[in-house]
Amino acid sequence: MTKINVEKCAGILKEQDDILILTHAHPDGDTLGCGFGLCRALLKLGKRARVICADEIPAKYHYLYADLQMPDFEEKYIVAVDVATENLLGSLAEVYGGRIDLCIDHHATNTGYAAYLLLNADAAAAAETVFKVIKALRVPIDRHIADCLYTGLSTDTGCFRYASTTSNTYRAAAELIDLGAANGTINRVMFETKTKTYAALERLAIEGMQFFCEERVCVITVTQEMYRLSGSSEVETEAIAPLTRQTEGVEIGLTIREKADGKCKCSIRTYESVDASKLAACFGGGGHKQAAACKFDCGVEEAKALLLAQCRTLLS
Amino acid sequence: MTKINVEKCAGILKEQDDILILTHAHPDGDTLGCGFGLCRALLKLGKRARVICADEIPAKYHYLYADLQMPDFEEKYIVAVDVATENLLGSLAEVYGGRIDLCIDHHATNTGYAAYLLLNADAAAAAETVFKVIKALRVPIDRHIADCLYTGLSTDTGCFRYASTTSNTYRAAAELIDLGAANGTINRVMFETKTKTYAALERLAIEGMQFFCEERVCVITVTQEMYRLSGSSEVETEAIAPLTRQTEGVEIGLTIREKADGKCKCSIRTYESVDASKLAACFGGGGHKQAAACKFDCGVEEAKALLLAQCRTLLS
Repeated sequence: MTKINVEKCAGILKEQDDILILTHAHPDGDTLGCGFGLCRALLKLGKRARVICADEIPAKYHYLYADLQMPDFEEKYIVAVDVATENLLGSLAEVYGGRIDLCIDHHATNTGYAAYLLLNADAAAAAETVFKVIKALRVPIDRHIADCLYTGLSTDTGCFRYASTTSNTYRAAAELIDLGAANGTINRVMFETKTKTYAALERLAIEGMQFFCEERVCVITVTQEMYRLSGSSEVETEAIAPLTRQTEGVEIGLTIREKADGKCKCSIRTYESVDASKLAACFGGGGHKQAAACKFDCGVEEAKALLLAQCRTLLS
Repeated sequence: MTKINVEKCAGILKEQDDILILTHAHPDGDTLGCGFGLCRALLKLGKRARVICADEIPAKYHYLYADLQMPDFEEKYIVAVDVATENLLGSLAEVYGGRIDLCIDHHATNTGYAAYLLLNADAAAAAETVFKVIKALRVPIDRHIADCLYTGLSTDTGCFRYASTTSNTYRAAAELIDLGAANGTINRVMFETKTKTYAALERLAIEGMQFFCEERVCVITVTQEMYRLSGSSEVETEAIAPLTRQTEGVEIGLTIREKADGKCKCSIRTYESVDASKLAACFGGGGHKQAAACKFDCGVEEAKALLLAQCRTLLS
């Protein structure tokens, strides 16, 4: 693995064609915004490029690619965006694992699985770095590219809310708005709009919220039964995790989601006092200091017990 | 009333001393951020200045003035910040009404009650304009002033979320962060932290949410009984109003708060299709296109019926 800078990254991309862009499984606005933003820029350069994801893309992200014609081709160059480890590619890892040529990322925990790595761990979103790469490619940035990159910035920072947000993030957002990003509409869709099914799921989640370790740990469990009752699905659960950290005094928020096969995943949210990526690492997961995730081969109750045992250790 | 620009406003303030700064009743982060930010700047210029408010300042805003020694004096010059009409001063209107020398505001509906008015209706927050005034005063901006002004920007835009937020708002935020504003901490306090009493009130509010006009209108009623059950109070209700607008399909969100005397107030939130300030004006209130408020001399049920009748007209 060779670490590269923005200029080198742009130089490499200029030399390549038939570029396949991989986004991470359970996709969010940053991986998708980076993927479709970079794809649009490469298409403008006259190259063939396409974005793929292992999982279904939630309907709210449709505007990122609604107008986009992505050509079909046999990939000659493979780029991963906002993907810290190959196993976060989900089912795509089986096909492309060990074959990734370039990765653009902002996770300090990036495992260096790609031949070239452009990593800026100080960036609040990978989209900050993809924005720089697109500028270095000297592609005229239209409002569609601006929308994609703004979506990455906004969603990965909880709408410029989290402590990871720097003045550079705000400046990049200002530039993208001047380039035509529809900030008001994007934020309304991402943060202000709850589908009726999600609103029902959220109500069940809040009703079932539990507190442990002298109310320093908050747990929300999302079960298959709750999806059935609310009409919602896993695709809509992205906004649940931040809720666990919002009650005064909570230092660790855990959102345990039951999968269809009865196994489960946990999203971890913390404040400064606890390193979320360390907690996730206890169970083979990873992420950032204040937002991380891990998977379990057991059911939600057993996973909860395992997680709470680790929380007790971390908080003592 | 004479409209003035930023330079003229700074020139006037330089000439004055013993300056009393008025904030609006039921204070929010913008009026308080502007008030304490401007007060700090004037104190740095060697002047005497003080901020007052008719209502109790919620505890979460304590950091805006925790370290501040505000001198006592008989006011010679009166400035109102982020106050669209004199009656929004609450009980201070009785004392200072008709005597206000200068107003710095961003409400298009400002009634021009002050002798001088510095109005920028394109600014997402009054703090954007106060920031310009402080720069024009050539006061070195320390991290306390930066915190105050950043608080105004962030709170009046729902953390840079609303459509009113422009690239200038983002650029101002970037500058303030570089000047030392603790953006992560401020946003955590303002948007990520719910007191246990507020969390209980919010749960009751969400449980009691009602939909009308083919689910295009959402109503939340906050009663004295709900304060009693949750241990919360009116001081904590600021975050309720945005909830009314979040369910898919809702165009008008109404939050009707019962006061201790049985009368009530309504906060109105809308999207592009409806002008909130027009709806508020039907009942003698005012505000912005997508966020406004009005008062009623009747109880919540009667106010709800009156509001819904107007909503039916507006939506038809």
